[in-house]
Amino acid sequence: METTLRVLDKVNTPEDLKNLSLEEMNILSGEIRELIMKKVNATGGHLGPNLGIVEATIALHRVFNTPEDKIVFDVSHQCYPHKILTGRKEGFTEPDKYLKYSGYTAPEESEFDLFKVGHTSTSVSLASGLAKARDLRGGKENVIALIGDGSLSGGEAFEGLDNAAALESNIIVVVNDNDMSIAENQGGLYANLKLLRETNGQTECNFFKSLGFDYYYVDNGNDIESLVETFSRVKDSDHPVLVHIRTLKGKGCKAAETDKEHYHWIIPGELDSDYAPQIPNHETYESITTDYILKKHAQDSSVIAISPATPGVSGFTPEFRAKLGKSYTDTGIAEQHAVAYASGLAKNGAKPILAVMSSFIQRAYDQLSQDLALNNTPATILVYWGGITGADATHLTKYDIPLISNIPNLVYLAPVNKEEYLRMLDWSVEQKEYSVVIRVPAAQVVSSGISDNTDYSNLNKYQVVESGSDVAILALGSFFRLGEKVKTILKEQLGISATLINPRFITGIDKELMEALKSNHKLVVTLEDGVLEGGFGEKIASYFGSSDMKVLNFGAKKEFTDRTPIEELYKRYHLTPELILEDIKNVCK
Amino acid sequence: METTLRVLDKVNTPEDLKNLSLEEMNILSGEIRELIMKKVNATGGHLGPNLGIVEATIALHRVFNTPEDKIVFDVSHQCYPHKILTGRKEGFTEPDKYLKYSGYTAPEESEFDLFKVGHTSTSVSLASGLAKARDLRGGKENVIALIGDGSLSGGEAFEGLDNAAALESNIIVVVNDNDMSIAENQGGLYANLKLLRETNGQTECNFFKSLGFDYYYVDNGNDIESLVETFSRVKDSDHPVLVHIRTLKGKGCKAAETDKEHYHWIIPGELDSDYAPQIPNHETYESITTDYILKKHAQDSSVIAISPATPGVSGFTPEFRAKLGKSYTDTGIAEQHAVAYASGLAKNGAKPILAVMSSFIQRAYDQLSQDLALNNTPATILVYWGGITGADATHLTKYDIPLISNIPNLVYLAPVNKEEYLRMLDWSVEQKEYSVVIRVPAAQVVSSGISDNTDYSNLNKYQVVESGSDVAILALGSFFRLGEKVKTILKEQLGISATLINPRFITGIDKELMEALKSNHKLVVTLEDGVLEGGFGEKIASYFGSSDMKVLNFGAKKEFTDRTPIEELYKRYHLTPELILEDIKNVCK
Repeated sequence: METTLRVLDKVNTPEDLKNLSLEEMNILSGEIRELIMKKVNATGGHLGPNLGIVEATIALHRVFNTPEDKIVFDVSHQCYPHKILTGRKEGFTEPDKYLKYSGYTAPEESEFDLFKVGHTSTSVSLASGLAKARDLRGGKENVIALIGDGSLSGGEAFEGLDNAAALESNIIVVVNDNDMSIAENQGGLYANLKLLRETNGQTECNFFKSLGFDYYYVDNGNDIESLVETFSRVKDSDHPVLVHIRTLKGKGCKAAETDKEHYHWIIPGELDSDYAPQIPNHETYESITTDYILKKHAQDSSVIAISPATPGVSGFTPEFRAKLGKSYTDTGIAEQHAVAYASGLAKNGAKPILAVMSSFIQRAYDQLSQDLALNNTPATILVYWGGITGADATHLTKYDIPLISNIPNLVYLAPVNKEEYLRMLDWSVEQKEYSVVIRVPAAQVVSSGISDNTDYSNLNKYQVVESGSDVAILALGSFFRLGEKVKTILKEQLGISATLINPRFITGIDKELMEALKSNHKLVVTLEDGVLEGGFGEKIASYFGSSDMKVLNFGAKKEFTDRTPIEELYKRYHLTPELILEDIKNVCK
Repeated sequence: METTLRVLDKVNTPEDLKNLSLEEMNILSGEIRELIMKKVNATGGHLGPNLGIVEATIALHRVFNTPEDKIVFDVSHQCYPHKILTGRKEGFTEPDKYLKYSGYTAPEESEFDLFKVGHTSTSVSLASGLAKARDLRGGKENVIALIGDGSLSGGEAFEGLDNAAALESNIIVVVNDNDMSIAENQGGLYANLKLLRETNGQTECNFFKSLGFDYYYVDNGNDIESLVETFSRVKDSDHPVLVHIRTLKGKGCKAAETDKEHYHWIIPGELDSDYAPQIPNHETYESITTDYILKKHAQDSSVIAISPATPGVSGFTPEFRAKLGKSYTDTGIAEQHAVAYASGLAKNGAKPILAVMSSFIQRAYDQLSQDLALNNTPATILVYWGGITGADATHLTKYDIPLISNIPNLVYLAPVNKEEYLRMLDWSVEQKEYSVVIRVPAAQVVSSGISDNTDYSNLNKYQVVESGSDVAILALGSFFRLGEKVKTILKEQLGISATLINPRFITGIDKELMEALKSNHKLVVTLEDGVLEGGFGEKIASYFGSSDMKVLNFGAKKEFTDRTPIEELYKRYHLTPELILEDIKNVCK
């Protein structure tokens, strides 16, 4: 190690904080901040949230007796200082261990981490359960939920607060208010937070008090002394307490303090003085989408784009949002509302386009079913990043097909190239019969060069891309390229001229085509970029179950993977042309 | 018709209300109330919510110009007065038309109904969409959301309020506060509502004001004059308004005013003077469950029962709840919190048992996945009433298998008799490895008479109930009886001694057993009491897809049915022994 860390060298567990002077804790803040900037700049990751919470984390571990006292981190993308203080500083001081620890809390790493968390707004509910269990056994430990202001807009957070406030025993909710969600905060609640900040927590009309919390305000939430003083006062409280602390997102990093949205999460090298942003020199499905929306909106003012607080997921840049003006809604972290809102918009004649990440649409199953599909309102929902990835277990994007495609009425489409995507998008926006979801390809843009004029109102008509015999390959959406490769290798190695089909529709079976295949095919192979269980392929297998047609389904296994390299997953699930060929050989032999 | 309705005879559309005197409107209230009591007593249905909202409905239609002005009913189980006033009074005056109209708002019935709704907490979000679409086209109509106090605890309602308050244009939220959810209200918010009622809406610490609403309070929400006066004031508001009205749930029906929980929804005849409640003289799965919980709790104080505001669904009677005392939590309508809370409880050593109706567990998909399954916390979730029913489209209970069984880690069990259910329940409560969901049979109790000692930690081991050959029947959970009948008819009519299998596990395949079947079986038949798409049978079909084994999957089709008689559905889906036999014959011929 190149640098000596004057205080951190002495701190290996939270217990070591108890003996530090205030001055030492302040030095420690600086040391932790430097480590975070260096590490995050090397690996990429959440920057702003972690820089803002350094002092509060030190103060929490100084005052409370973790792990006996329990801290639940909301989203947990602000847990880096916590990891540094709880035995995992090597993950920040030693570059070869930078990737050893997850970017989120992970109980398998440390007893100081209670839950594996990566979706927002869950901490208060989880903490309520911990607190109630403590009460049932007559325990005395403190239970703390640390939640950011941005996460408060999520319905689960409200349900948790409403219940926690009625708990009649110890629960301490720390609201880390940095006046930012991932993008700007949205919603009426945030005016109240602003008023609370401006009145030093004194205004009578107080959201948290209205729910029944005993309320404390710390105006400088980056001042360890104030934090220690307040946390000490509420420690061992016998009733629900809420401590509202004002912090500076990105503190200590000028760029992150200034452009809070951009530096919420960075890619490697962004803090380097010679960093030059890579402007993609090629189209992406994000840029195709935003270009389409802007053009469409210029012709039709009833077009409106919506993001549930994650505009970055869909390339909804600040410029794009500014151009749309009032025809863009950021609902805050509120997927349930976003879906119902889109349904209401469509019902009253507008043309809503809601962009959501696959992992987060999970939060709106009931709204997709009840508010949207049951009402057949013609909203368009774009699901981004659906597919198998090497992501954290909390952000897997392989479940959207079973989630969405088994809901009646919904039309879930999987385009395979730019032209098809644009056609599906425009068809969806213009039609009035169906609630439509489109799985935006999570892949490099492929252009067929031929404009698509398909009328997708003829539901469940698959496209036969190349006619052949013996084997039919149903290659869905972003796995269409894989299907092409399988076709090639089948020809090369087995001399089979396979039929290649682009299903286009995830939500239904082209029965006419499937029947026709029976005449000169023995095997149907399905390929889907998602989990097999409950997905597309199993429906095809069921369809052919009572016939002589053989079916092989390829896709991911139902399991939580955690930062497993995608190549390893492709191998594990037999998702390379060679491994697929082997399986086909075993059936056709 | 036996009675003359002095005022209602003049009222066929809301327009007719405009000419009535106050006295006539008061008479009209009484007439509507009488009709509702008579009709609901004849057919069963929601009583208390409808009796409480009579005056507010008259006042809304008097003041606003529906259907141009738009009213969105939350849950819509309080829409009977609205239906009476909007051209559908025959459904209440003519006994032979009592069943003509849905008990919920239904756009297919009337242009005055905006959405098909039956789950709570959605109205503000849906109305926000209507309002925003109006703004985009420069419209001027009023948009009103009518939401009960009980629905406010649901996260979607909060997300909606937070967003609606920031809308900067007309939206009018009417909170119908009758100080009751289905059972008692729970949560900190309700203390604030109480304070608001006690201070005539004057207290400064006001939940709704904290979100930014312009707030109005009507202390007598059953007084048409006050309501008309306030609604007239807020009509055409150019900013978000919230009108908090205090009403009496069950008003006008002594029994319903007194026992608000019981008379929320009644069965036919309950208002008759000679009505005697039917005490079931047989065990039910609800009574088995509550007996188990009470007994277990007496031995182990870490056992805790949870209901998300629907204790009636699981037979959690007031007596049962009183016996458990602090070991029972009603979370309010808050399924997301309930699942996360159960996970937190289990994490800290308690033994939570959460009881939810199949249709409502839909609201907690992400929590089942992220808060529970990803963390492998040993909570027990009981899903009630799962299966194919003739219910309203909003309350179908056939989707829980695809919803739950495709989430990794979860163990979803389907017991077929009392002994198996009790064993699974006790196993789940005592074990520490898995998050477990049990599909409580929605059927009459069947007892095998033989106590079950299976260790369900050996995941995915199916039970061969009777060994045979040629055909294997996998009869899941509440369709096990159907499987027995199919076995009998196969023997009788085709001479086939089929193998009968009780899968027990919905979430995995017994591969060893499936392989063994190949030696002397040609056909596997799966039976499941739920939707086929994404369910159990398709997985079996996929498993055998590349083999010579034929597979037939039986279950419901993916579609919203609406009060379709169950016999008709069984016929449509080929779920009678005779129709199944026909399909088997077609494969085996």
